[in-house]
Formats: sequence, structure tokens, C-alpha cells
Amino acid sequence: MEWISNSRILIVGLGLIGGSYAKALRRLGFHITAIDISRRSIDYALQHDIIDDGYTSVVGDVVSSSDAVIFALYPKVLKDWIGDYQQYFKKGAMITDVTGVKSCIVYDIQDMLRDDVEFIASHPMAGKEVYGVENSDDAIFRNANFIVTPTERNTKAAILWAKSLGKILGFSRISVLSPEEHDEMIGYLSQLTHCIAVSLMTCSDNQHLVDYTGDSFRDLTRIANINEEMWTELFLLNRKELLKYMDIFIDEFSSLRDMIEREDTEGMKARMRLSTERRAYFNK
Amino acid sequence: MEWISNSRILIVGLGLIGGSYAKALRRLGFHITAIDISRRSIDYALQHDIIDDGYTSVVGDVVSSSDAVIFALYPKVLKDWIGDYQQYFKKGAMITDVTGVKSCIVYDIQDMLRDDVEFIASHPMAGKEVYGVENSDDAIFRNANFIVTPTERNTKAAILWAKSLGKILGFSRISVLSPEEHDEMIGYLSQLTHCIAVSLMTCSDNQHLVDYTGDSFRDLTRIANINEEMWTELFLLNRKELLKYMDIFIDEFSSLRDMIEREDTEGMKARMRLSTERRAYFNK
Repeated sequence: MEWISNSRILIVGLGLIGGSYAKALRRLGFHITAIDISRRSIDYALQHDIIDDGYTSVVGDVVSSSDAVIFALYPKVLKDWIGDYQQYFKKGAMITDVTGVKSCIVYDIQDMLRDDVEFIASHPMAGKEVYGVENSDDAIFRNANFIVTPTERNTKAAILWAKSLGKILGFSRISVLSPEEHDEMIGYLSQLTHCIAVSLMTCSDNQHLVDYTGDSFRDLTRIANINEEMWTELFLLNRKELLKYMDIFIDEFSSLRDMIEREDTEGMKARMRLSTERRAYFNK
Repeated sequence: MEWISNSRILIVGLGLIGGSYAKALRRLGFHITAIDISRRSIDYALQHDIIDDGYTSVVGDVVSSSDAVIFALYPKVLKDWIGDYQQYFKKGAMITDVTGVKSCIVYDIQDMLRDDVEFIASHPMAGKEVYGVENSDDAIFRNANFIVTPTERNTKAAILWAKSLGKILGFSRISVLSPEEHDEMIGYLSQLTHCIAVSLMTCSDNQHLVDYTGDSFRDLTRIANINEEMWTELFLLNRKELLKYMDIFIDEFSSLRDMIEREDTEGMKARMRLSTERRAYFNK
């Protein structure tokens, strides 16, 4: 991990995740520069010693003096940014992202990218239901998963670099998946889960029910407080996988519904035993 | 709350909830007797000073010396018990339960019950994903809801008695609902929620996915670890309300699915804004 010692790191997009990366990496001694269109975010980060320097527009010299660039942008903006400004990247620079979908961006970026820099995609599976650099906190990386999603075009060195990034950020588990495996996994574990929470929440204008809520309903709907701009983009970019799992879920749920309707006690019990058995994998 | 001072309380059914009631009430100085068919549960509770006396069968003298009887049994067993042994109740005894469904039991019990005792139903909305008196813990009542569900046949004194029971057990919010309001609320907030968790869990044999799970999936499936005997009975006893909410949920979820399929960005965002707005009620 030689890159660590004197590296200058540029973070593009200083929201919750970008800010949390900045905090973790600056504490380790890196020189952290941020670019974000929001003056308020940059000023906040400077005032709170989260970054060393900050800019609200793309400054060529800043980009070309950075050994590593971390993009914490929405997927489409990320692709545009690289198309527009890749001429500024320092030769040999290592580039990564934080995006929650992979297949739809990784190949396009690698296709358009200069040969003398390398893009290795990664996904920090951490978040909060609040936004902005003001809420950034690298404690969210503890007990969380960091997934590196290389393609055949990535070098071993870049994969190692990305894995070590996850480690020094404080993630508990670092994994390597193909972009396709990643997107299938995320379609089920994260996106389907968010669609369920949203739909459960919109079932009823339940203001009068608040006083009777138990923990289970609160837990299931915590993520129903959702950033609609980001998640709409993520859902559509992973549409195929997400629809596949939504359809599987509708089948499972409808068949349980029909068992209840026809009072199929044994079928219901078998379903619940299966659920209990599978949930046990997740207790480890 | 005169009943408090020297009352002898009988708890029938010494599982997680019965045991938690026993702990809370004994600490307040009540004399606590328990009846449970399991010798092991009674012995455990005696050894750990959770109860004063315990029996593994129904002893007439024990029932007839109790000022209050709390049933922590499954709904059908509860009805049978009262049918079989109500002759033993002490004149003037106050009787309550802990059952998670109400309409289907409250009226039947009140219909069959002797005139000189009173059954006032209540539902402690608290639980854990583990079972048995060994796991009992009255800390689960803190920050939880206690619902009293009287009918027209209940006296004001009994309603007050049940409300004060919730208070001394340590519940944070005590509410009064009709049995029908209770069952509709529980169909949505608790039963639908459990059906969703079970169905999400059975969507995939996801053993290989455990390493990538974020908090949201874990939170949504915590209750997928489920007691199939109890919940099958509860679902079937509240079948009409539960099916109503399952159908509403399928509609909501399917319409979100269709928006994603046809890439209806504005529809998706509007749905998520509604979800965020409604979830905000629950943050108070």
C-alpha cells in the first residue's frame, strides 16, 4: 500500500459519503481536496477541518496533482464528469467511486477512459437516512461491507489498492464481486428491500396509527425515509435485476396470502419454518 | 388502584410474556402464582424467584384464591381454558389476557363467562425473537404500547384496572381501542409486517449473500425468525383484516413495480416523497 504515504486524494462530490471518506482519510494523514458544486458544503468542510482544500468547480491543476480520485456522485453525473474532464487526470492516477450500481457504469467508464489511468469500481455498503457533509461520519463504515467490483481490464495492483482503501476506511468486510454479481446481490438485498419499505409505508395514511406501532413496523420502514432523486436513478439503472426480484417477491408474498385465504395451516407453518431457517444464516 | 396492595395474581401460561409479567409484578410486591404445563418452566421460575408458587395443572383452590388472573396463552387454548375451569374463579376476580388478536376471542369469552367476574382484554405490544420464561425480561415493556380493548359489557372500573396494569408493568403508552380497531391496526402494523419479512426471506436461498448484507435487509428480516405455531394461529384468527392489508400492499408494491418497468421517473419520485412524508409521523 505504497500509495498511502504521501498521497494526495481528490474527492469529487462532498455529501454524506464523500464527507465520511474525507474524515477517515484525513485522519490518516492524507492530503484531502474536495470538489463540490455547493459552496455551503465546501465552506462547512473547511471550517470543520474535514478537508484541506475545496473548490466549487473543476480546476485542472487540482485534478492533475491528485494521486487518487474518489467519485461520490450520482451514477449519471459521474459518467459525464469523466467524459468532460478526464484530460486532467494525473498519469498513473487511481480512480474509484462509491456508486450503488455497477454494470451500467463500470464498463462505459473503462471504455472511455485514457489508458494511463485506471478505474477500479467499489461500493461502500453504508449509509444513513440523512444527507450532506454536515451528517458525515465514518463510524458508519464499522461493521459494514466494502465491495470491490473489478472487470477483466483491471490490474491486480488496482484491486489490491481498492481493497486496502476499504480497509483503511474502517470497513469490517472487504469482498470482491463481478459487477454483475454485485448488481444481482444489490437488487435483492438493498433495492427490493427499499421498494418493500416504501410500499408498506404508502399502504395507509396511518397518522392515527403511530401510537400503536411496535418495533417491527418501525424497523421495516426506517428506510422508507428515502432520497427520491438518488434511489430513482439507482432503481432504473439496475431495473432488470430489481424487476426480477420484485417479481419473485410478489410470487412469494401472493402464495403466502393464498395460503392464509384458504387456511392452509401446514403450508403457512412450512413457509415460516423456512423463513426462520434462512434468517438464521444472518445471525452469525 | 386498590387492587394493587394485597392482590394475589395468577398467571396462566409462563412463557416469554407471562414470565415478564411475573417479574415486573413480583418486584412490586404482589403474590405471583403461575400455572404452566411445562414442569421445566415452573421449576426455572421458582429457582430464579420469578414466581412465588407454581403448578403444572389447574388446581381449583389456587384459581379461587386469585384476585386477578392473567392469561398468557395462545388464543384457542385460552378460550378452552375458560370454558373448562371458569367455575373456579373467585367472585369479583378481574381477568385479562395478552392475546394479539381481539374480536375473535373477547366476545366469545364475555358471552360464556360467569356474571360475577369480569374479562377485560388487553394487548401488551412487546416481544422478542426468543421464547420461554428463560428469556423473560420486563425491560421489553419500556417504550412499548399497551392496548386495552373493552366492549360495551366492560365496567369503567375494569378499564381503569387494565390501564393501571399497563402502567405498573412499565409500558410507555397506554391506549384504549375497540376490539375491531385493534384488529385492523394489528393487521397492518404487525401481521402484514411479519408476512412481508417472511416473504422477503424466502425469496432466495441466499446463504452466499450473507457477507454483503447491509443493515436495511437485516432490519427488515429480523422478525422473519418467527414462531410458526403462534403466528399461524394469529394470522388465521385475524384473516379478514390481514387479507385486506395484504391486498392493499400487493397493489402498492405492484404499481411501484410497474412504474419501474415503464421508467416512470416522476411517478417513482412522487411515491418516494409520499413514503418519506408518512414515515416522518413515526419519528416523533
